Amino acid sequence: MADKLYHGAAWYPELWDERTLLQDAEEMKKAGINVVRLGEFAWSKMEPEEGRIELGFFARIIGLLNDNGIETVMCTPTATPPIWFSHGHPERMHVNEKLERMQHGSRQHACTNQAYYRSRAAAIAERLSRELGRLPGLVAWQLDNEFKAHVAECFCPECLSLWREWLRSRYGTIDKLNEAWGTDIWSERYAGFGQVPSPGPAPFLHNSSLRTMYRLFSMEKLAEFADEQATILRKHSDAPITHNGSVAFHADNERLFRGLDFASFDTYATCDNATAYLFNNDLWRNFKRGKGYWIMETSPSYAGSLTSWAKPHPNGYLKAEAAAAYALGAEAFCYWLWRQQRAGCEQPHGSVLSAWGKPTVGYANVLEVEEARKRLEPALADTRPAQAEVALVYSDRAKAFLLTEPHRRMNHRGLMTGFYERLLAAGLHRDVVPEGAELDGYKLLFTPFLPYLSPELTERAKAFMRDGGVWIAGPLTGTRTEEHTLHTDAALGELEKLAGAEAVYSYPMDESASRGRAFGLSAPLSMWSEVFEPKDATAVGIVEEGLTPGFAFATEKRIGKGKLVLLGSMPAGEEGERLLEKLMLHYADEAHVSVRSDVSGGTIVAPRRGDGYDLWVVVNMDGSGGSVTLPRPGWDPSTGEALPPGELRVGRYEFKIVRFNREEGGR
Amino acid sequence: MADKLYHGAAWYPELWDERTLLQDAEEMKKAGINVVRLGEFAWSKMEPEEGRIELGFFARIIGLLNDNGIETVMCTPTATPPIWFSHGHPERMHVNEKLERMQHGSRQHACTNQAYYRSRAAAIAERLSRELGRLPGLVAWQLDNEFKAHVAECFCPECLSLWREWLRSRYGTIDKLNEAWGTDIWSERYAGFGQVPSPGPAPFLHNSSLRTMYRLFSMEKLAEFADEQATILRKHSDAPITHNGSVAFHADNERLFRGLDFASFDTYATCDNATAYLFNNDLWRNFKRGKGYWIMETSPSYAGSLTSWAKPHPNGYLKAEAAAAYALGAEAFCYWLWRQQRAGCEQPHGSVLSAWGKPTVGYANVLEVEEARKRLEPALADTRPAQAEVALVYSDRAKAFLLTEPHRRMNHRGLMTGFYERLLAAGLHRDVVPEGAELDGYKLLFTPFLPYLSPELTERAKAFMRDGGVWIAGPLTGTRTEEHTLHTDAALGELEKLAGAEAVYSYPMDESASRGRAFGLSAPLSMWSEVFEPKDATAVGIVEEGLTPGFAFATEKRIGKGKLVLLGSMPAGEEGERLLEKLMLHYADEAHVSVRSDVSGGTIVAPRRGDGYDLWVVVNMDGSGGSVTLPRPGWDPSTGEALPPGELRVGRYEFKIVRFNREEGGR
Amino acid sequence: MADKLYHGAAWYPELWDERTLLQDAEEMKKAGINVVRLGEFAWSKMEPEEGRIELGFFARIIGLLNDNGIETVMCTPTATPPIWFSHGHPERMHVNEKLERMQHGSRQHACTNQAYYRSRAAAIAERLSRELGRLPGLVAWQLDNEFKAHVAECFCPECLSLWREWLRSRYGTIDKLNEAWGTDIWSERYAGFGQVPSPGPAPFLHNSSLRTMYRLFSMEKLAEFADEQATILRKHSDAPITHNGSVAFHADNERLFRGLDFASFDTYATCDNATAYLFNNDLWRNFKRGKGYWIMETSPSYAGSLTSWAKPHPNGYLKAEAAAAYALGAEAFCYWLWRQQRAGCEQPHGSVLSAWGKPTVGYANVLEVEEARKRLEPALADTRPAQAEVALVYSDRAKAFLLTEPHRRMNHRGLMTGFYERLLAAGLHRDVVPEGAELDGYKLLFTPFLPYLSPELTERAKAFMRDGGVWIAGPLTGTRTEEHTLHTDAALGELEKLAGAEAVYSYPMDESASRGRAFGLSAPLSMWSEVFEPKDATAVGIVEEGLTPGFAFATEKRIGKGKLVLLGSMPAGEEGERLLEKLMLHYADEAHVSVRSDVSGGTIVAPRRGDGYDLWVVVNMDGSGGSVTLPRPGWDPSTGEALPPGELRVGRYEFKIVRFNREEGGR
Repeated sequence: MADKLYHGAAWYPELWDERTLLQDAEEMKKAGINVVRLGEFAWSKMEPEEGRIELGFFARIIGLLNDNGIETVMCTPTATPPIWFSHGHPERMHVNEKLERMQHGSRQHACTNQAYYRSRAAAIAERLSRELGRLPGLVAWQLDNEFKAHVAECFCPECLSLWREWLRSRYGTIDKLNEAWGTDIWSERYAGFGQVPSPGPAPFLHNSSLRTMYRLFSMEKLAEFADEQATILRKHSDAPITHNGSVAFHADNERLFRGLDFASFDTYATCDNATAYLFNNDLWRNFKRGKGYWIMETSPSYAGSLTSWAKPHPNGYLKAEAAAAYALGAEAFCYWLWRQQRAGCEQPHGSVLSAWGKPTVGYANVLEVEEARKRLEPALADTRPAQAEVALVYSDRAKAFLLTEPHRRMNHRGLMTGFYERLLAAGLHRDVVPEGAELDGYKLLFTPFLPYLSPELTERAKAFMRDGGVWIAGPLTGTRTEEHTLHTDAALGELEKLAGAEAVYSYPMDESASRGRAFGLSAPLSMWSEVFEPKDATAVGIVEEGLTPGFAFATEKRIGKGKLVLLGSMPAGEEGERLLEKLMLHYADEAHVSVRSDVSGGTIVAPRRGDGYDLWVVVNMDGSGGSVTLPRPGWDPSTGEALPPGELRVGRYEFKIVRFNREEGGR
Repeated sequence: MADKLYHGAAWYPELWDERTLLQDAEEMKKAGINVVRLGEFAWSKMEPEEGRIELGFFARIIGLLNDNGIETVMCTPTATPPIWFSHGHPERMHVNEKLERMQHGSRQHACTNQAYYRSRAAAIAERLSRELGRLPGLVAWQLDNEFKAHVAECFCPECLSLWREWLRSRYGTIDKLNEAWGTDIWSERYAGFGQVPSPGPAPFLHNSSLRTMYRLFSMEKLAEFADEQATILRKHSDAPITHNGSVAFHADNERLFRGLDFASFDTYATCDNATAYLFNNDLWRNFKRGKGYWIMETSPSYAGSLTSWAKPHPNGYLKAEAAAAYALGAEAFCYWLWRQQRAGCEQPHGSVLSAWGKPTVGYANVLEVEEARKRLEPALADTRPAQAEVALVYSDRAKAFLLTEPHRRMNHRGLMTGFYERLLAAGLHRDVVPEGAELDGYKLLFTPFLPYLSPELTERAKAFMRDGGVWIAGPLTGTRTEEHTLHTDAALGELEKLAGAEAVYSYPMDESASRGRAFGLSAPLSMWSEVFEPKDATAVGIVEEGLTPGFAFATEKRIGKGKLVLLGSMPAGEEGERLLEKLMLHYADEAHVSVRSDVSGGTIVAPRRGDGYDLWVVVNMDGSGGSVTLPRPGWDPSTGEALPPGELRVGRYEFKIVRFNREEGGR
Repeated sequence: MADKLYHGAAWYPELWDERTLLQDAEEMKKAGINVVRLGEFAWSKMEPEEGRIELGFFARIIGLLNDNGIETVMCTPTATPPIWFSHGHPERMHVNEKLERMQHGSRQHACTNQAYYRSRAAAIAERLSRELGRLPGLVAWQLDNEFKAHVAECFCPECLSLWREWLRSRYGTIDKLNEAWGTDIWSERYAGFGQVPSPGPAPFLHNSSLRTMYRLFSMEKLAEFADEQATILRKHSDAPITHNGSVAFHADNERLFRGLDFASFDTYATCDNATAYLFNNDLWRNFKRGKGYWIMETSPSYAGSLTSWAKPHPNGYLKAEAAAAYALGAEAFCYWLWRQQRAGCEQPHGSVLSAWGKPTVGYANVLEVEEARKRLEPALADTRPAQAEVALVYSDRAKAFLLTEPHRRMNHRGLMTGFYERLLAAGLHRDVVPEGAELDGYKLLFTPFLPYLSPELTERAKAFMRDGGVWIAGPLTGTRTEEHTLHTDAALGELEKLAGAEAVYSYPMDESASRGRAFGLSAPLSMWSEVFEPKDATAVGIVEEGLTPGFAFATEKRIGKGKLVLLGSMPAGEEGERLLEKLMLHYADEAHVSVRSDVSGGTIVAPRRGDGYDLWVVVNMDGSGGSVTLPRPGWDPSTGEALPPGELRVGRYEFKIVRFNREEGGR
């Protein structure tokens, strides 16, 4: 797929007549669509009766597309088992936390752990691989659709059995489980694995370990299903396999993509939430590092269903999104959906063509994207996204911990996006990386909102610091063990020892008029916090007001050539945002972070590297236009225009391409 | 019932001792009560054991009332099946959308589609008809009580079978259903009617067609039950049959009243919601056109139950309500209830007498109503409500569509009342008419919020336009097919062709800073909207700001002697209210609407026609007093006072009666 | 326990290793902890397998504590039945109002009415009594933990049977029940007790009598369980028995504590809610009059769980709480919990030591409490809380009525605390007393928010008035019968006759712009109200505006040497607060209330009596400091300092002890 940029759309040929299909293929070419996704809900078309699998229709569609120069991402249809699967078989259906059993007619109604479901999913995948796996034009596979978008853990009896098996393999003996979970509390103690319940209806909260482990179990079983399916698809096909994920769903994306070949995500953020959009690009680039990622679904204008809609994009915004994505490492920018649904519950969803085959309100923007793609494709060729020097760790396991323990309705995604926004505001180029990522090449590492800090991550961070890296740990980091319990040696366990500071008190600061000062700025402090006595460390943030004045809320300690910074509390409000940015810039300077830019708010720089040169794509995302300071002379490879050092302006939702000769060591 | 005005109350003689009953009858006479409603919850009194039906008590009560000059509306008691029906028979109970099964002790706990329920309801209705149907004083029957006030669709297994039968008779073959509903989406496709579920628990939304059809099925089965009961009552009785309905309940009132003899409704709007009160009067007059309607229940002061209460009416408001109702065509104005409940869950509900037999805080207002009734009865005699020239179409089927597809929590009743309020503010006398209404006599027709526009209505509207009528279609009209899917030829299907305009784009406008201009005024535009290119039409409203400036949001086209106006968007805010009123007045002028008045806000004119003369009842509804401009000299038939042309003032909650000689063609 | 003040904490030795236990005992001594509560969740430790009961561990712990000078409150562990009880036995689990069945893993998951549960609870209690009942250091028993904190009524089939038995014993015949509940309404009527349902899922509200009686049944069965358990514990032990209750739980505390030996409560009010804290002290002192009460649980700083936290106490507040409690009659001030939970769902809850054994943010405050305790213990010795002259009646049965009939989300606890706050502001010392309390010694009696006024209470109040007492009845008092129905002779039944006033109208006043005037002040009137015509009484509060101007909302009538004041409406807003305080002070003067003080807002006086002298403890609760006027010279027994008459200042969260010689008859 190298150096080709895809512009794609989801298409449902099983819903339309022949004439419409031919017209669609024609119109796709006109709009510049060069890849199409097919089949993710088409199980009943593929297997109209149990065991009668007929894939000729899709083979023909892939051929039709290929004839029109359009490649295909083919999906397994397992999100929507047909009526022959559902009808008369309540035991195959998903059961939610309230023990309500789902029924046919929507999607994700089946339990994906159920043995019969797995066998039918295997059968359809095997046939897909065999019959479509080597067709010309087949560029990739997608598994299912948005795993666990609508449902979380399943509570069916079959899951209960699997859960107990999973526990047995995790803990070995029930005594170990009892000890790990502290089940002597509330007489929860189990005499055998066969007694451990799933965390269903209860008068009050369940044990945190039970609740969190059930989430991890569920995420692991989902990944196991994906692995099974991928193995089958690979039997007769070399096309790479992906899944269209999201940080909003109930999956461990790092684990899920371990068994897949490239990463894709769906996003429907409105223009007001461009930060979330950028966060996703900086994250999904890193689930399969070194490989391009796909935006598999986004709306050409607005999302919608029978019961809601998002506001349409302002004109121009779609192009800014696409330019940012391509420049940040996306290989594909794909719409949901090509032709508006005429029926079902997503009739109001934005599309490229209407249900009656006419351009929609987003259509002109789609043409702008195609124009941008054509301009970017040659310019980006032979370059790759620059290695960021700042890494922000993202963890779906941390999300699971926060779902179990949300403090006061805290939301993992919102917390992470808010933290990320400060890096953006500070002009620091960044990778959002999964927990297990290698840290080579980074200079500054942030791990906020990570209740459980694994020994593996800590070891990597130690090596990182030894080599000169600066690690900012916190807030809300290292406060819980792997089992979602407290440490019993120190508030932050090993982390405290490493950081040379003692967490003297640990308590919620939000309503206690707490304030702190660091790097010359003062701000309110918030969230559950630790305050430190620096033993073998230096206080860099001091509590000024509140219950514990004089204690540190941030400390630093030199480790190897680098540094460990403990951040025990979250600076809040606008003052807090400034303080956090100041902290980021302070340590970015210390760590000699050079991949950064002096860019105005609402505009971003996506840095890339070619052979002997650097490339910047500067994109205005907020519709107000903006500017960036060019550190040295450059030129625009798409126009040939020379760009002098100093301020470069970009218009509303416009983008600029700037090529620099490499100046080693320069900023 | 001609020319008699009823003043009534609901009474529960089965709850009180003999002495209290005699005292009540005496007190009713004093208060001017001339009709009483009996029996709607008294099944256990009528049939204390299964099969032992004893109606002597009610025969005696009807006699007692008749002896006191009070007529009776007798009810079937089917809203509250007795314990012998419920106990040990969960299969007879209502099951809600979450599959929770109801139990005895409240009301509407039985499934009204269940066969045994139907048979017991038939038996009690047959005996009621036979034993009470020809008693002196029996003026009418009421079926049940507030059908589907507390419950919506039933999800019991018996309903599931009936649903499948209903689908079979609607679609004939499963293929037709699959095609109509687009069930290839999400592999919903059914191989037979026996597989189609009711829209119960699911991870995400059900198919719109499934959801909406289940609502229509449920409303149709309810009407079928009402028809069955009416047929039985008519066996031995000529008294007309009604039901106390409401637009708030889950019924298709147009369909329901087709099989009944006159229309009645219940209303508990507070004085802050007088618009809703008037809307109901203008609507219920038209469910059985040409016949008087009844207000079967309203509170003398305030509604209440164990868990809520509405604020009491200010003194005087009740009289204004009654005067408005009688003048707008009501034959009866009845209270719920005569004597406060001493037990149960409605003890806090307002009444005429307290549970201890004393006048309540509303009592003096009841006497004022009686005084008004006496003054109006002779004045209104020999007159009938004037035919309005403006019709606003109301549809419970449209409500069903909006329940399935509420966009962003849009509420059909609120939307309709808001639209109606603009007509009121414009001083246009209006009928709110059901979808199936004949359009003879109207000059201006509004059909807002009608997603599915039936061919029948369109045909009637065409004839109406040919004869000179102006039809304003929209907003949110004609956007969906009968099956709750999209058109695939054009956004608005046939309507576009008729209107000579192409709906180029269709999208939600609310958060896109959209504004439009029409008739010299500018306003924000809102809701899901269509913007038009006038092909064979004229743009009369132009989008000024937003995503599609320059397109029309309103067009008009001459058709026959009349006109079709497409309104593609909803003007919003106060500016929008002014714009909408301007539009209404503009087309009222064009259509030569003459039944209108120059009346101050908060005061209404109810126009009536006698033989050679017109009669206006002018009522102040907002408690601030108001005025109307008399177009020519008149006189008050209740006092003989001459009323010169020009301003006529009415005091706080007062009403005036004005008689004019007919002046043909005059405004 | 006389004259010893306890300073305690809850401890879970079953959760920690031996070394930690020894360290804890040591640390407790340092912190001044002299009593510990054990065992309330330790059933699985005590009876690891069904029938194998082993209490040696706890015997040893009690010994260890005793060796360290720490006494023990031992608990029955019945709040958390072990897995051998739960697993495979859904029929033993609690079923909530929606008929959801609970499962193992939280607490209160068992039905406490279930026969097998009762038998196992009896077995463990018997062994506890036998093996631990006479151990040195065992100071008291606690039954279970926070009965019905997480659950309300159980709806399991076994409860349904017990409910029907209870009804049979309450009503004797089904006809009496039908008559009492007015079941002819809505054809609810039952032919036998076997037909009466529990008030589960229904389309609309259940009959008020059914709903309220099910609450009373449930509260009675709970007290029956407590009685059973207490009887068993007493077999082999003389230690007094308590339970840690709360007005927030679903229990009838008056009934519950009738069978127990002393009263205890749990409170987690933050400093913003000091009024609620004081209310509880003034209430729980009176559940077992003449005996000290315990604060069995309070947080040293903040409450917390996985899903919420309360803000930490400001420094100093804990000491103010403890001083107030001891002075108001508490024998014990105990924390939940000693050592932070390392696992489970309460890890974030405040504690004295952290899970890693270090002082928490609240620790310094705990030391301040100990200092206060040491200063107060000798000073309070030989004194007892002064008999208040003002009594405010509290009733959990009234709470049950308001749960059934909340008007508009009215909350009994909030209403009572708000009313109490006015007494506090008026400087009147007060007892909050249960319904059944003897009224000897009181001069002023308030019974607000008491829908059902029992003949027993009325009789006691009559005697009280004959002797000179002033009874203020209302608002919302006497409006309902024992069966939760209306009176049928008068709005307030017998109370009206006694008060010599007729409640002419009864209606909700909140939104009707109602105002009233009394004692020279005017204020808005609110809540469901009665307005009176004073027959044989005097109007003291007059409705000025609203629907019924000129009627009285408050009347008084001399009865014996005393007075009955009817308060028919609730003065609202700040004006209402002033009016209510004025009324309280007016009648306090009339009734010659002398136990009162001139104290600034946010500071309280706790008056006590010794032999020939009075003692005041003056505590600043709001952190702003305050002052009190000393009526005569006193001295501080803890310092010897002379305190002249006039203003005495207390600092932020400080307390002062003032000893006066008794001056009989003085104010």
